[in-house]
Amino acid sequence: MLNGKLHLFFHSELDNPARWQAALTEQLGELQFSTVDHCTRPDTVDIALLWTAPANGLADFSALKAVLSLGAGINQLDLSSLPHPVPIARLVDHSLTQTMVEYARAAVFRYHRALHRFEQHSRQRLWQFEAPLLAQQRCIGVLGLGELGSAIAQALAKDGFNLQGFSRNPKILPPITCHSGEQGLYRLAGEVDMLINVLPLTAETEGILNRSLFNAFNKAVFLINMGRGAHLIEEDLLDALDSGQIEAATLDVTPIEPLPDESLLWNHPKVLITPHVAGLSSPQQAAVNLAENIRRTMAGKPLLNQVDLTRSY
Amino acid sequence: MLNGKLHLFFHSELDNPARWQAALTEQLGELQFSTVDHCTRPDTVDIALLWTAPANGLADFSALKAVLSLGAGINQLDLSSLPHPVPIARLVDHSLTQTMVEYARAAVFRYHRALHRFEQHSRQRLWQFEAPLLAQQRCIGVLGLGELGSAIAQALAKDGFNLQGFSRNPKILPPITCHSGEQGLYRLAGEVDMLINVLPLTAETEGILNRSLFNAFNKAVFLINMGRGAHLIEEDLLDALDSGQIEAATLDVTPIEPLPDESLLWNHPKVLITPHVAGLSSPQQAAVNLAENIRRTMAGKPLLNQVDLTRSY
Ligand SMILES: NC(=O)c1ccc[n+]([C@@H]2O[C@H](COP(=O)([O-])OP(=O)(O)OC[C@H]3O[C@@H](n4cnc5c(N)ncnc54)[C@H](OP(=O)(O)O)[C@@H]3O)[C@@H](O)[C@H]2O)c1
Ligand SMILES: NC(=O)c1ccc[n+]([C@@H]2O[C@H](COP(=O)([O-])OP(=O)(O)OC[C@H]3O[C@@H](n4cnc5c(N)ncnc54)[C@H](OP(=O)(O)O)[C@@H]3O)[C@@H](O)[C@H]2O)c1
Repeated sequence: MLNGKLHLFFHSELDNPARWQAALTEQLGELQFSTVDHCTRPDTVDIALLWTAPANGLADFSALKAVLSLGAGINQLDLSSLPHPVPIARLVDHSLTQTMVEYARAAVFRYHRALHRFEQHSRQRLWQFEAPLLAQQRCIGVLGLGELGSAIAQALAKDGFNLQGFSRNPKILPPITCHSGEQGLYRLAGEVDMLINVLPLTAETEGILNRSLFNAFNKAVFLINMGRGAHLIEEDLLDALDSGQIEAATLDVTPIEPLPDESLLWNHPKVLITPHVAGLSSPQQAAVNLAENIRRTMAGKPLLNQVDLTRSY
Repeated sequence: MLNGKLHLFFHSELDNPARWQAALTEQLGELQFSTVDHCTRPDTVDIALLWTAPANGLADFSALKAVLSLGAGINQLDLSSLPHPVPIARLVDHSLTQTMVEYARAAVFRYHRALHRFEQHSRQRLWQFEAPLLAQQRCIGVLGLGELGSAIAQALAKDGFNLQGFSRNPKILPPITCHSGEQGLYRLAGEVDMLINVLPLTAETEGILNRSLFNAFNKAVFLINMGRGAHLIEEDLLDALDSGQIEAATLDVTPIEPLPDESLLWNHPKVLITPHVAGLSSPQQAAVNLAENIRRTMAGKPLLNQVDLTRSY
């Protein structure tokens, strides 16, 4: 608290703090809102709203009661400098889920109706008819069946596609055929025409999109990575594109963002790069959920969507 | 009839006759099935199944009882050589409607999530974030609210977009805001972010996608032509792309198909050409509906989906 007011600290390279301040003030009334540029009293900050941690860390935030991530994932958030253990929640909000679902639809339908090929043919003055398939003739696999993955899988199932999904714990989510465990992952890989990754990045999932997974494909697969860049072994992708195991790839996330100029993924004829735009929270929508967790923190109640640090998501 | 058997004549440059023969035989039992290559007794043909008319016309088909179009439209079908007036039906079938809906989704979501721009940025090694919009922040207009247009508009409304539609007769199709008449067309044009054409080609609709329509836009519009090439004035499109009235265009149909090499639409950075692939009937599905109209013809009953030649659709 600073002068009797709730004190929030905000840090994100990707967002406009003023829009979040306005949205949070609308939910919570008058409050103290600081960013790195003008945080003279870090010792009075109650709650930190963070995409990433500030460069100088959080050691001075001696009164900190909670960290609320501005992302659905927390892997980008270095929490090693926390002054003491506090609960951490990730962001779950409807506008984020909807943007992710719409991105998945865009990437899937583009491949489904061969627009990626017609784009190239348009440049080559090539009129080459190919008969379209129907959605029910395709099988799509979704890795991760949490908040986002299950919404994506359900939406694509409604569009008529056959869906298979993969999660850590066994799940029942009809009409999606659900798998878990390493064997489950390989079974799924053997069935799919398209594979969408929307896992959180953890020690267990890092590099999960690799050569041995691609070897389990039974046809040339379309790969869509909406999780994190480090899920994918770039070299293995390039080899699989060359060998034809992977037909084409859409990558919304890359190990280093922005993707460096010298990357072989840039200008690869089978790769579409999108600049981490798949999911976005609108401050108005997200502020509703953040405000709920802020009120819970100040009332000493458990947080919604609290991260389990033992499994790191 | 030939030797007591139903005699069907089949003509399409786009289809494999053997697949249609098999599908129709499955529905109707043994029958005589001819194509131009081996039709020695045109005077015994009962029913002609046509995408286009054969080069030598139909004058010798003296026993003809009906023409069943293999397309949803009949404008491609020159009926001037018919030996006598017969009823003409167009093809309505679920697989065709579904392919058209899926094409519309592919074209719409590609623009909605700026994949057309990210494709170019991927070639230019350009990582340029832009915040996505949600479907409910876009308005899509659909010209033609028949079998195909109404299915497309309803599907996109279910995806969350705002929909406006245009037809000859006034319609009530919630949640689609419906317009008719020239004034209605211009009112719709003033509202939309994307415009999908799926009208039939008639004297009234030829050239409907023209300069004066584009002048009614209130913002840079994405144009998707899934009707017929002659709906669009190519020169007016090129000007509108230059001036920014039209942001980008997806053209599945062109006045001459295949689109000639020298066309300025090829390799235009804002134009995606697809080779008339939006809608396709599967012979299996379509044969069910064709068989029903064949049985009706032979029983002297009125056809389903009969074309009203006074309005030519
Ligand atoms: N590209 C973008 O713009 C963008 C935007 C937002 C989020 N994301 C990414 O999307 C991720 C998922 O977000 P979310 O909100 O859906 O997370 P979530 O609700 O926590 O769901 C995570 C899912 O992954 C599964 N999972 C975790 N570890 C696993 C493992 N080792 N093996 C198999 N399955 C495992 C979980 O299984 P259980 O259900 O069994 O626990 C759960 O189904 C985020 O972490 C972030 O990386 C990307
Ligand atoms: N690209 C492809 O692969 C592909 C494939 C199949 C079809 N198509 C095209 O799609 C067209 C439509 O097929 P459909 O099965 O939906 O036809 P339909 O059921 O006959 O519907 C035609 C619609 O257009 C409206 N219309 C006709 N003339 C009009 C005018 N002068 N002004 C305003 N509205 C007018 C009709 O209005 P009312 O409802 O008031 O009668 C009706 O809503 C076909 O004719 C064909 O050109 C393209």
